[in-house]
Amino acid sequence: MSPTLPDALAVMVDIFHEYASKDGNAHSLNKGEFKEMINAQFPHVFENSTDKEGIQKLMIDLDSDKSGEIDFSEYMTFLASLAVVCNEYLLESMKGFQDKNSRKH
Amino acid sequence: MSPTLPDALAVMVDIFHEYASKDGNAHSLNKGEFKEMINAQFPHVFENSTDKEGIQKLMIDLDSDKSGEIDFSEYMTFLASLAVVCNEYLLESMKGFQDKNSRKH
Repeated sequence: MSPTLPDALAVMVDIFHEYASKDGNAHSLNKGEFKEMINAQFPHVFENSTDKEGIQKLMIDLDSDKSGEIDFSEYMTFLASLAVVCNEYLLESMKGFQDKNSRKH
Repeated sequence: MSPTLPDALAVMVDIFHEYASKDGNAHSLNKGEFKEMINAQFPHVFENSTDKEGIQKLMIDLDSDKSGEIDFSEYMTFLASLAVVCNEYLLESMKGFQDKNSRKH
């Protein structure tokens, strides 16, 4: 059976807790936990040394209440933004595919 | 291997397109597509006849730009809110479990 939306939500909740609970506080990701999560889950996004600053900058941008940590709601805002980008990319690819196909006729 | 965050994001994007593209416009869920998606993905949430109004009300609440349809970003806001509720429920359960365990000592 294909994975459902509740399955996908459970993965997001579980992964947050896997990293957030490392310091004993399961409510938020501290700087180390956030870096560890990003490197493990999105290994190709921040690969080179320049991008170490990228993770730091990303964390500052996401930390909307300026608590110094990423809480669950900030983490979900991040994932929702990533999904929007993936979706736009997919729509563009579909459009390109359709344009290509319509030119054939 | 456990599912990753990119896997979970792909499920969300795929399911949106599965339902949104039924009317030929893959950019948003119309009323029928939204109902079909909710009933298929969350079958126990809106089960009885009173809740048919619930789906309608939910759709109006989510449709923040009042376009009459749910676009991808509104869909992600919905999923993010659901995830926050699931997470709070999980944290409460963990707390209950810890309290129960600490009373044993």
